[in-house]
Amino acid sequence: MIRLECDYTQGAVPEIIKRLAETNLEMTPGYGEDCYYASAADKIRGEINMPEADVHFLVGGTQTNMLFISSVLRPHQGVMCAHTGHINAHETGAVEATGHKVITIASDDGTINAQQVREILDAHYADASHEHIVQPAMVYISFPTENGTLYSKAQLTELSALCRERDIPLYLDGARLGYGLMSEECDLTICDIAKFCDAFYIGGTKVGALFGEALVITNSKYTKDFRYIEKQKGAMLAKGRLLGLQFDTLFTDSLYYKISSHATSLAMKIRKAFQSKDIELYFDSPTNQQFPCLTDEQMAKLGEEFAYCYWCKSGDKHVVRFCTSWATKEEDVDKLIEAIERL
Amino acid sequence: MIRLECDYTQGAVPEIIKRLAETNLEMTPGYGEDCYYASAADKIRGEINMPEADVHFLVGGTQTNMLFISSVLRPHQGVMCAHTGHINAHETGAVEATGHKVITIASDDGTINAQQVREILDAHYADASHEHIVQPAMVYISFPTENGTLYSKAQLTELSALCRERDIPLYLDGARLGYGLMSEECDLTICDIAKFCDAFYIGGTKVGALFGEALVITNSKYTKDFRYIEKQKGAMLAKGRLLGLQFDTLFTDSLYYKISSHATSLAMKIRKAFQSKDIELYFDSPTNQQFPCLTDEQMAKLGEEFAYCYWCKSGDKHVVRFCTSWATKEEDVDKLIEAIERL
Amino acid sequence: MIRLECDYTQGAVPEIIKRLAETNLEMTPGYGEDCYYASAADKIRGEINMPEADVHFLVGGTQTNMLFISSVLRPHQGVMCAHTGHINAHETGAVEATGHKVITIASDDGTINAQQVREILDAHYADASHEHIVQPAMVYISFPTENGTLYSKAQLTELSALCRERDIPLYLDGARLGYGLMSEECDLTICDIAKFCDAFYIGGTKVGALFGEALVITNSKYTKDFRYIEKQKGAMLAKGRLLGLQFDTLFTDSLYYKISSHATSLAMKIRKAFQSKDIELYFDSPTNQQFPCLTDEQMAKLGEEFAYCYWCKSGDKHVVRFCTSWATKEEDVDKLIEAIERL
Amino acid sequence: MIRLECDYTQGAVPEIIKRLAETNLEMTPGYGEDCYYASAADKIRGEINMPEADVHFLVGGTQTNMLFISSVLRPHQGVMCAHTGHINAHETGAVEATGHKVITIASDDGTINAQQVREILDAHYADASHEHIVQPAMVYISFPTENGTLYSKAQLTELSALCRERDIPLYLDGARLGYGLMSEECDLTICDIAKFCDAFYIGGTKVGALFGEALVITNSKYTKDFRYIEKQKGAMLAKGRLLGLQFDTLFTDSLYYKISSHATSLAMKIRKAFQSKDIELYFDSPTNQQFPCLTDEQMAKLGEEFAYCYWCKSGDKHVVRFCTSWATKEEDVDKLIEAIERL
Repeated sequence: MIRLECDYTQGAVPEIIKRLAETNLEMTPGYGEDCYYASAADKIRGEINMPEADVHFLVGGTQTNMLFISSVLRPHQGVMCAHTGHINAHETGAVEATGHKVITIASDDGTINAQQVREILDAHYADASHEHIVQPAMVYISFPTENGTLYSKAQLTELSALCRERDIPLYLDGARLGYGLMSEECDLTICDIAKFCDAFYIGGTKVGALFGEALVITNSKYTKDFRYIEKQKGAMLAKGRLLGLQFDTLFTDSLYYKISSHATSLAMKIRKAFQSKDIELYFDSPTNQQFPCLTDEQMAKLGEEFAYCYWCKSGDKHVVRFCTSWATKEEDVDKLIEAIERL
Repeated sequence: MIRLECDYTQGAVPEIIKRLAETNLEMTPGYGEDCYYASAADKIRGEINMPEADVHFLVGGTQTNMLFISSVLRPHQGVMCAHTGHINAHETGAVEATGHKVITIASDDGTINAQQVREILDAHYADASHEHIVQPAMVYISFPTENGTLYSKAQLTELSALCRERDIPLYLDGARLGYGLMSEECDLTICDIAKFCDAFYIGGTKVGALFGEALVITNSKYTKDFRYIEKQKGAMLAKGRLLGLQFDTLFTDSLYYKISSHATSLAMKIRKAFQSKDIELYFDSPTNQQFPCLTDEQMAKLGEEFAYCYWCKSGDKHVVRFCTSWATKEEDVDKLIEAIERL
Repeated sequence: MIRLECDYTQGAVPEIIKRLAETNLEMTPGYGEDCYYASAADKIRGEINMPEADVHFLVGGTQTNMLFISSVLRPHQGVMCAHTGHINAHETGAVEATGHKVITIASDDGTINAQQVREILDAHYADASHEHIVQPAMVYISFPTENGTLYSKAQLTELSALCRERDIPLYLDGARLGYGLMSEECDLTICDIAKFCDAFYIGGTKVGALFGEALVITNSKYTKDFRYIEKQKGAMLAKGRLLGLQFDTLFTDSLYYKISSHATSLAMKIRKAFQSKDIELYFDSPTNQQFPCLTDEQMAKLGEEFAYCYWCKSGDKHVVRFCTSWATKEEDVDKLIEAIERL
Repeated sequence: MIRLECDYTQGAVPEIIKRLAETNLEMTPGYGEDCYYASAADKIRGEINMPEADVHFLVGGTQTNMLFISSVLRPHQGVMCAHTGHINAHETGAVEATGHKVITIASDDGTINAQQVREILDAHYADASHEHIVQPAMVYISFPTENGTLYSKAQLTELSALCRERDIPLYLDGARLGYGLMSEECDLTICDIAKFCDAFYIGGTKVGALFGEALVITNSKYTKDFRYIEKQKGAMLAKGRLLGLQFDTLFTDSLYYKISSHATSLAMKIRKAFQSKDIELYFDSPTNQQFPCLTDEQMAKLGEEFAYCYWCKSGDKHVVRFCTSWATKEEDVDKLIEAIERL
């Protein structure tokens, strides 16, 4: 069985395992005050060309989202996001558990646009009784989205301009950031992301690390006392070195981009294979997740050799997800392509 | 510089690093549904001889405390603990952030006793306006305490009996559990802990693991839906295998006990060295943390070669902490002892 | 200007003012332990024929909703409701502020049905990763709804049966309960409400009182320690007598029903007037709120003499709301009818 | 039985009842947007000579404390107060329920001083791991304290200066403000309170109103969006007129001060009576609460005719509380004094 159902089934790039072993008995201060943590943060600041950016390494994505959002919002404020957004759909109400409503925006492909956000803001403040309604006060987007789709530079520019005009932070969930940036259809760089957003995170768990996400707060208005919040929510890893070392490795010699590119290009081969067979793709994803619409028979057939993830029904077809990752073997993808061709 | 200031400066026992490397590219399901997680949980259930116990592997101690406490208490309830208890003193209000008051009990050595808890409960329910006061509804203890001290079997028996009589859970923070259990002065086994408490955790971060704590809920009344809580608080590690594998290793061939015993016996050598020099020990600790009261001069002298942790002032002396761990080298301890002898 | 924009512009029925004055200098115990509070609770228990029901008098509706919901749900649980439900739309995230997600159900008229709730529950538990999603664990309905519509006995029976089958509480917001019960189209009695729901509240603020809502918890599973929650959320009125006395008055000689009937029958006159002019009613409301769709001109014309509440646009028309209440004068309604006829 | 156990057993000053009756059927906008609310706020702004102050009328004290504190603090921050402070001792953890720790300061008489606050702040920031500890970020004091004692102008000046130096708000709970201001021993005016504090509330529930507290936020840094917070916590009274009208009445012709003075001077007569009999007063209270230390016999004797409140044991004596209020009759106090003399 070749497993392609998700992008976090395996450990980490060998470089990370090697360095973990090598440094295992080094004595370092705890809680993110070691040299590896500092070095990794520096590399990320260099990468985005923002020497003042605030970088925190956290363990997981839900944690990162919950921390940043609850650190910034006041009690009566909520965060806008696509109804498919991870914070709305798959984090067991982590944001609400910190007291804040997730204000959903309908979305076909997982993205939202400036116009939708503007309408919510305008409607809110136009309402004479707006104090009876949660105040929309942050925008959350995912890049790539949960459906594998991307924002273009034009879209992000517009969203960012609106947020700045209205003085609300724009936060980007980059659980699969690398897979987005390395897509051929992506016209954004990590510097653009850093420039357009007030905060974003660079996903490690799904992109080469054992675990870990790098939260980058680029707007200094939102950095104050973040380490207290980190500790309070149980997110400050005692041996912060483990996080620092992983991101230090990923951001040495462009490793993060190389492994991301590997995954994305394999996904594009899968995409083409489906397209060649005239099998519809439910979302038009240029990244590492592909969502073909299969008949019962096709689904069964592919299921004999490949593990995929069931997504939803679409008419009389079934949408399933195939994922590639930094660790996916080209030969496995080739086998899948052959199987698709045989359908 | 020989670093003895805390017990989480180094990585993990080599067996763990070895297995991490070996299994790195294995594909396993996420979120704690893999075979290593299951195996580790089984071993712990075997260890405490409770085949029905609920075991969850979490990343850190603050997280574990906050999760269990907030999962069990209703909004108007609080948790009793020594004023020195970690949840009261060093977790940035993580418990309060979930809505619950920490009800403190004065303590000289870090332990609390059944009589103190009984008085709080009796006073609460005797007060005609008790609905205006947070309801004391759980007992939190640390073993060993933050001061290195231990509960005796008699003390724990009494505390447990009271809690059961009043139907409130007894929860034990075992961040350094191994170092307590392996103390020569300890008359409790892990089975006793499991039997007397409704839930407890087996610390990994400070005892041999890279990170990780094993929460064991022995009273089935408190297990329902715990995984939802785990996900909501950002505590469900995507690659749960990493936690499972670590605890599986620690609970193979009694490794957890062996490495704990190593640390505790080295600490006893340090303790004796101070006692031989008539240097007072601020807490009477039979575990891996030692708290000598030093003069300015002694402190400076030892500081030339050894890193310790400053604790507090005591009269004109300074209390500092020396910690041993699973990774402490006997030769380093011998050097410290020589230095103590030369004071 | 005749004001018909909402149902809480005026004080209380004269009987209440009279008794407040008469008892003003009586000395009574605080916090709901006085004889008026007890008497009112008894009358309500008698009214619903449930001698064991738990009755609490609270100050307002948002408070009542937030208290009951947060008292019952565990941290990972959410409450289902129509997207138009007051807790979702007009309480500034009060429920989320206690940590719980509001799980919305699309609704045309403000009601939801058993089938919709069943689908959410089934989908939740069918999802292999349901622990990543807020657990749907309570149903909130309003009666009448925010749009003036009602549940039939058949609908409520079915909803209640489903909730009991799945062991989740059914909670009814009765801010305008009287106006619903006294509608000619209503086939439910207050005893039915009490029997089918696990908890509900009888609105006073909009129905004859200066302020106050009577929360009735009929399922003993949800009553424990409620007074603690009340105090904690700042909802325990020091002079509870003020609430007791008001509800005691309202539930003497069927006053609550009489004044409700007055408002509803006046609303029916308004409804007929609009229908006679072939002016569409946006919601088919048999209760005290009426929602005509007006042209710009009609809206302006009526606005000269009458205050109404703007609701929303509908095509090229405007939906506005006219409300009657216990205090509305028949002559004012007659003037409105004349004005409608002149449109 | 003459009841002197607390100061909220009776209704309101007759002027309030009269105006409630007179205005009962007036139609006013809801939620604090009526003319009475505006007028009352204006009078209070005039009273403190701060035309820009933000005034909100709320229903009760616990609610007011919880609202202001949770509106201002960020998640990792706590509020310092005397261990006897109402928010710590008698509000069922309302502050913790909004996520914030109450950081207690030991106090003999209910007051705290600048030195104690300075020590907490200094110790916090001196601690290298202060991010592991709740950040002390607000000071809460009561005036009069729960024990009837007062801050002098010198004490308040010093506390205020410290808070401003460290940029943390000073908040004063004035549940019994009038009884403090009208004490002969008080050297503070309401203008001083307004000037030295960043926010405070003027208690109505215990001082002449049916219910209600006037929160006055004098530092504009803490006023933003407060009405959202009010609505979210269920504290925005639909018929805000009821609150406005009460405070408008209390602040017309100095009524608030006159009725406060009445209570305080009666309490002074009681105080002297106890002193004349050499009965120790547990707290040296110059306000409306008196705390004599009685023998079993004395307690029983007085209990035959008078209701008091039991406070605590003190050696072999019992501390009880006698309260006067705006409604206490001089003849009742005279009867108490005779009884004391007969002891």
